[in-house]
Amino acid sequence: MSNCIVAQSGGPTSVINATVAGVVKGNQLNHVYDHVYGGLNGIEGILAERFVDLSDMTEEENRTLQQTPSSALGSCRYKLKRDNVEDFEKLISIMDKYDIETLFYIGGNDSMDTVAALSEYAEKNNITNKRFVGCPKTVDNDLMHTDHCPGYGSAAKFIAMTALQTWLDVNVYPASRQEVFILETMGRDAGWLAASACLSGKIDILILPEDAFDKELFLKRVKECIAEKSKCYVVVSEGARYADGTYISAGESANDLFGHAVLGGAGKALEAMILEDEAAPRCKVQDLSTAQRSHATEQSLVDRTEAYRLGMSAHMHSADGTFTGQMIGLKRRDGEQYDVEYFTIAASEVANYVKHFPKEWILPEYKGITKEAFDYLQPLIEGTPYITYKDGLPAYVEPYYMRA
Amino acid sequence: MSNCIVAQSGGPTSVINATVAGVVKGNQLNHVYDHVYGGLNGIEGILAERFVDLSDMTEEENRTLQQTPSSALGSCRYKLKRDNVEDFEKLISIMDKYDIETLFYIGGNDSMDTVAALSEYAEKNNITNKRFVGCPKTVDNDLMHTDHCPGYGSAAKFIAMTALQTWLDVNVYPASRQEVFILETMGRDAGWLAASACLSGKIDILILPEDAFDKELFLKRVKECIAEKSKCYVVVSEGARYADGTYISAGESANDLFGHAVLGGAGKALEAMILEDEAAPRCKVQDLSTAQRSHATEQSLVDRTEAYRLGMSAHMHSADGTFTGQMIGLKRRDGEQYDVEYFTIAASEVANYVKHFPKEWILPEYKGITKEAFDYLQPLIEGTPYITYKDGLPAYVEPYYMRA
Repeated sequence: MSNCIVAQSGGPTSVINATVAGVVKGNQLNHVYDHVYGGLNGIEGILAERFVDLSDMTEEENRTLQQTPSSALGSCRYKLKRDNVEDFEKLISIMDKYDIETLFYIGGNDSMDTVAALSEYAEKNNITNKRFVGCPKTVDNDLMHTDHCPGYGSAAKFIAMTALQTWLDVNVYPASRQEVFILETMGRDAGWLAASACLSGKIDILILPEDAFDKELFLKRVKECIAEKSKCYVVVSEGARYADGTYISAGESANDLFGHAVLGGAGKALEAMILEDEAAPRCKVQDLSTAQRSHATEQSLVDRTEAYRLGMSAHMHSADGTFTGQMIGLKRRDGEQYDVEYFTIAASEVANYVKHFPKEWILPEYKGITKEAFDYLQPLIEGTPYITYKDGLPAYVEPYYMRA
Repeated sequence: MSNCIVAQSGGPTSVINATVAGVVKGNQLNHVYDHVYGGLNGIEGILAERFVDLSDMTEEENRTLQQTPSSALGSCRYKLKRDNVEDFEKLISIMDKYDIETLFYIGGNDSMDTVAALSEYAEKNNITNKRFVGCPKTVDNDLMHTDHCPGYGSAAKFIAMTALQTWLDVNVYPASRQEVFILETMGRDAGWLAASACLSGKIDILILPEDAFDKELFLKRVKECIAEKSKCYVVVSEGARYADGTYISAGESANDLFGHAVLGGAGKALEAMILEDEAAPRCKVQDLSTAQRSHATEQSLVDRTEAYRLGMSAHMHSADGTFTGQMIGLKRRDGEQYDVEYFTIAASEVANYVKHFPKEWILPEYKGITKEAFDYLQPLIEGTPYITYKDGLPAYVEPYYMRA
């Protein structure tokens, strides 16, 4: 028997390790490979032969790994360029050296491009004993073809929960205190994360990158809310933009004293508009920042289970010696009760595309999302896994990249 | 039998409603009062006779109330001024009208001053059938005499947890990527919240209001961390300040384009220093903002239990017809295993003072906190209550101030 290797790339999620755990458990239950290696820091670490052996992971560590956020194998932003033959040759020779037949690559857009590029290279060079399999993950939920992406449900749950909790907070003062609360989420090009806040049922104004920003309309809506109930709850995606494509955070106010562009900042930009226009006398901004993709203590059980089983599915598919250049996707099954099944699709069809939040799911005048959108989103945040704790804090595995 | 009323004031916490639940349950178990009223929006609402009757709350609603963050009765920032006799007279006459003997006031510094002022007024005017009882709450943990404040443990737990999770996030990239992560917490005058991040065991640099900020020393420490391990994790209190008392967030960069002072912003100020000095090429700031005081899905069980029992203790103490002008405090019991008991103290001794994070608990050069501090903090975040969910989100009571 030969070996396989699993690695992670791009920005982490709350359940990205569940997919690693699934690959490992898949091979423990059904022995396709001798060893399951973990590649540290993605392709970058594999090229430097930085591996760990995950084959004999205990069931306890496997469970703890599933509740550990961020990439336990480390990540990278290294992109294999198709004209850099040296990297391809080196990677294949390292795989040969360790008798590795299959590389499972867990990531987003760029990682699917890497999977596509590697399988193309292998095909072109008649390398028939190497397989490259993509496992999707991204909090942004912006990959094509798959119904949704592992990682999104947990981030969506944290966002909806925080929206509900901070909505309760901003409303405690009497009507005499007029106030706008602005929640800023990730999502540079797609509004999936911001839209998930609507699951709280509390959002007055929702601003997505897919919905051209109109300052006058926004301020009108703020004033209406304040007039009606003295409070206004706004959710904005970091990628919110005007009709001409300019980010709303890209004005002068988005540069600090030293001229550095301040990324994020859509919430602060809205706050400045509100205060300048005197649409409301008081404004508070909460930027969820890194917490929204790492807050694994409140994983969605649906999300975690799907990410885990996706790793198992990838492992199973790879048992077929011709399976390469493919990504495992999620398909929503028909029927009243939410459920999914896995399917496979060429990684090249996923790479370098962005799936936007559907325009027909956006209500006019920033009034949120349609019932259809709500029904799509809601099942993804269902369920709360049992989390183990130690000394009051969640029990996490020590990152493998720190163990060497 | 006469009646009592319970009300909430100031900024909310994750367990402020547990104290209301304790007062209500206390009276259901041991009938001291006919009715337990809830005053809406604190003193402000009581003066407007805005009440709800909580006497017959079901056990299920009581449990749900305990897991609901923010003030379910609403809050206010209204401060009774001692020279405003009209307010005092009006309040007493409303209490007379509804046959209310006892007012339980849940709040921080200002609320304890209200309790003190009301009991002084009653004593001066020979009003012997009215009692005013203070119940402490504040995420800031800055009230005198009590070992700690209900509300602090849950906020501390969320902060320590977020520190651990975002630390995992910032470390995933290879050593070639140098980066500083800055976590900003609440705490204008006291460093308790920022210090709680150290429970994660991951903090490189901790900056508290009690520890004069020295820019050169700070940048030196950042450079040392980056040189050693290419990443640096910083926690800063919003109230961090220079030796002369100037907030580090109070520079020019703390004003936006329109000249409004930007509150918070200590993290952004540190980021600007780091980038300007080129101490590190990359910096990310996470401001925990409102989420840290409202994230009740991860209450500390110790905190929630203590807040609940404190409500019961306040109710019990008030059965003595002479108990007034007092606050219920928490005393840590001797012994190996953490436990507390309640004691009573004149509210006037708590009002208008701030309990700072002890200087002798701060390590030099922003290196965090001593073992003694760790041992004080750790038990306060222990335990995770069972939280009930509905449609993937926590089940919360509808705020009473919205039901009218």
